[in-house]
Amino acid sequence: MSPEEFRTEGKKIIDWIADYYENIEKYPVLSQVKPGEIKSSLPETPPERSESLDEIMQDIDEKIMPGITHWQSPNFFAYFNSNTSFPSILGDLVSSGLGVQGMIWATSPAATELETRVLDWLAEMTGMPESFKSTSTGGGVIQDTASTAALTAIIAARERVTNFKSNEKGISGNLVAYISTQTHSSLEKGIKIAGIGKANLRLIDVDEKFAMRPELLEKQIKEDKKNGLIPFFVCATVGSTSTTAIDPVREIGEISQKENCWYHIDAAALGTAMVCPEFRHYIQGIELADSYSFNPHKWMFTNFDCNVFWVANRQELINTFSILPEYLRNKATESGEVFDYRDWHIQLGRRFRALKLWFVIRHYGVEGLQYHIREHVRIAKELKNWVKESPDFELVVEPHMNLICFRHKNGDDFNMKLMNSINESGKIFFTHTKLNNKIVLRINIGQTNLKEKHVKEAWMLIVKTAAKMATI
Amino acid sequence: MSPEEFRTEGKKIIDWIADYYENIEKYPVLSQVKPGEIKSSLPETPPERSESLDEIMQDIDEKIMPGITHWQSPNFFAYFNSNTSFPSILGDLVSSGLGVQGMIWATSPAATELETRVLDWLAEMTGMPESFKSTSTGGGVIQDTASTAALTAIIAARERVTNFKSNEKGISGNLVAYISTQTHSSLEKGIKIAGIGKANLRLIDVDEKFAMRPELLEKQIKEDKKNGLIPFFVCATVGSTSTTAIDPVREIGEISQKENCWYHIDAAALGTAMVCPEFRHYIQGIELADSYSFNPHKWMFTNFDCNVFWVANRQELINTFSILPEYLRNKATESGEVFDYRDWHIQLGRRFRALKLWFVIRHYGVEGLQYHIREHVRIAKELKNWVKESPDFELVVEPHMNLICFRHKNGDDFNMKLMNSINESGKIFFTHTKLNNKIVLRINIGQTNLKEKHVKEAWMLIVKTAAKMATI
Repeated sequence: MSPEEFRTEGKKIIDWIADYYENIEKYPVLSQVKPGEIKSSLPETPPERSESLDEIMQDIDEKIMPGITHWQSPNFFAYFNSNTSFPSILGDLVSSGLGVQGMIWATSPAATELETRVLDWLAEMTGMPESFKSTSTGGGVIQDTASTAALTAIIAARERVTNFKSNEKGISGNLVAYISTQTHSSLEKGIKIAGIGKANLRLIDVDEKFAMRPELLEKQIKEDKKNGLIPFFVCATVGSTSTTAIDPVREIGEISQKENCWYHIDAAALGTAMVCPEFRHYIQGIELADSYSFNPHKWMFTNFDCNVFWVANRQELINTFSILPEYLRNKATESGEVFDYRDWHIQLGRRFRALKLWFVIRHYGVEGLQYHIREHVRIAKELKNWVKESPDFELVVEPHMNLICFRHKNGDDFNMKLMNSINESGKIFFTHTKLNNKIVLRINIGQTNLKEKHVKEAWMLIVKTAAKMATI
Repeated sequence: MSPEEFRTEGKKIIDWIADYYENIEKYPVLSQVKPGEIKSSLPETPPERSESLDEIMQDIDEKIMPGITHWQSPNFFAYFNSNTSFPSILGDLVSSGLGVQGMIWATSPAATELETRVLDWLAEMTGMPESFKSTSTGGGVIQDTASTAALTAIIAARERVTNFKSNEKGISGNLVAYISTQTHSSLEKGIKIAGIGKANLRLIDVDEKFAMRPELLEKQIKEDKKNGLIPFFVCATVGSTSTTAIDPVREIGEISQKENCWYHIDAAALGTAMVCPEFRHYIQGIELADSYSFNPHKWMFTNFDCNVFWVANRQELINTFSILPEYLRNKATESGEVFDYRDWHIQLGRRFRALKLWFVIRHYGVEGLQYHIREHVRIAKELKNWVKESPDFELVVEPHMNLICFRHKNGDDFNMKLMNSINESGKIFFTHTKLNNKIVLRINIGQTNLKEKHVKEAWMLIVKTAAKMATI
């Protein structure tokens, strides 16, 4: 394909994307295809000869689109959002166009240094302590997901507590980690991958707001130490997946510090909200953390994948992950004046992901981001009130931010049927969880293009459908 | 930004990318900036208010471009290529536009099923055995990098050998893994992350072509077993980073199978070449492997990140990585009729990466891909001959494919100075390695836009610069 053909085809696809967003509400939000339907519509063997972009785009429309669940629809209320926005799409397009691989500083200094700068910006924008900035002892790096960020923290914690001997000698089986019963499943996955074993992962119980009970954490650590085990890692969550529960950051941090545990804070869902000073009380005590991360690909309108991860002491991270084969040696690395981000994570190679984040921050500005976060929180409060006023539904937990957890009073089966039948209508898409052994429905309010009317219509649909079902 | 503004701004960026490729040879290939130069050109604090796309793109031109190392330049001969191509950029643009997160089948069936289909195509296109296809016991999945693919294989191997008990109980420190002295550093990194410990990683010596010596592997395994250790993982490389050395796939596979080791084949660099039947003798014995991976983001013109990873028995992989929290439960998953790819890797979330690969395969067609691979191998042979004919340079190892390893006869310092001074000219960019304790220069011939003239000019530049340096 020549640059001239690329101009033509590229502009058609830009128009195709714009058309998509203009019509996005016409698609069923949750894809309605059956298992195997998409796969069987695609040829079993690859094409021998070149096909045109027109043919490919026709297949996108006819074969791929029916199998898309529309995460960018303002009627998507499921899970947490995985948002994009026009400036993010354009930033990522520039990144694809440049096609640089920023594994070390020298392979594109701008990829490293823009990332360092933007992560310092984010630290500033969200009220993080100075220690996490690259200008101090810490620094930030883009990871693909909060799962990988958590695994990275676990490995660094494992190395620190064993004097960087686990990397050398393997691990000994007496290390213990602590999370709550509400912590994201990726922490369990990370503990398994790191060779710690699920049996050495303690799930601390939560209070009525589903936040970790620090006194139970302290008790468990004492008991484990009495049994000759070595506590090494504690994770607090700011915005749990089921209910956006917020663990007491300071109290857990004080215990972690006293007990010499690595303290990781997973704010995947809610970290973005810290651009608004009025929400920062939720992360008070963050200065006690060894690592902290959140997902701009959730609430900061930056397309997946984009997790941001900071450490208070970058040397611990680098000592954990650094490997320098001859073919990557270079002057800049040896001068010690640069960051080589391949030493900050699991992978070697890396895409230029700072661009999309930089586009988003500059396009919205701090004020623009604050506006959208506040608007989502305001609309969530409206929904909370509608739920509370409803005679048939109950609010399951007082919301902190933008996730409303509720259930119909008719029991688990009724709630699941209600949710499934609405999702099958394609009008909206929302999901469930289980709390205290009961099915709970979740409406997450954070989509880039969401307006109050979308939430109002969603609620009316839920109420009406429930009323109809209840009379059958 | 409205869809209308997106149309305007998006088309400008398409033109910007086309302009970039039309002028790419005018930039210095290796960025010439000093450490800190880019960072200090960027504001220390984030913008309070929205900035325009024009302002951002002006900063790209003025502040970012000087810090880019141009991986897409046909004069980039360093490392291995990390290629993109116009169809790949467009496929990735569609993916960014749709913004779906394909962690489970239901969150976008098309993302899962297109990936399954395309990975089956690739298995077909590269002559892999039926067992690796989704229609049999195996299946393929896109991972970000070969590093992560290797780690995934190591973890699955660890679980299989311990009857899926390491995930539960942690590991016991008697597992041993085997690679060669030439294997990529990511394997050592993966062994560390998995808690095995570097002390339990055996680096088997290589022959004169830098390929693993299977008889030494067998001997080492026997010795380790005698000492009560448990061999569990063997990795063969098809295209080592230093020299594209190719380990004897069948012999190593037979030993692995006999000794009950998981057998992983890392063909990151050369896997793409298997689209040409005449190169498939290099992977004879692949049917003995438990897992196999290569990087379309290297030689298949698909932009980073895109590693493809297959297993012969998907159930082992799923048993290793599966976690099912309530909030991800859904009918399709419970029916068992679908793949949920989050159980096939470390991360939970995932981008719709199959699109770019699908665009590339359809745009080039199998014949088109074969043409480019053969052309690169042909040009590499030309370069090999020029090196051999030169009185001042020596060929260090007979090349298998598209990487030429050579050195000037004047010794290590001379070679490093030669390389650094040419790279600082910005005309081409190439890198070095160390073999038998001697500095060796590498020219990798695999860039999407490369023509024979680029290699000819690069060689003339090297010869002339060396001649000039030798007379000083």
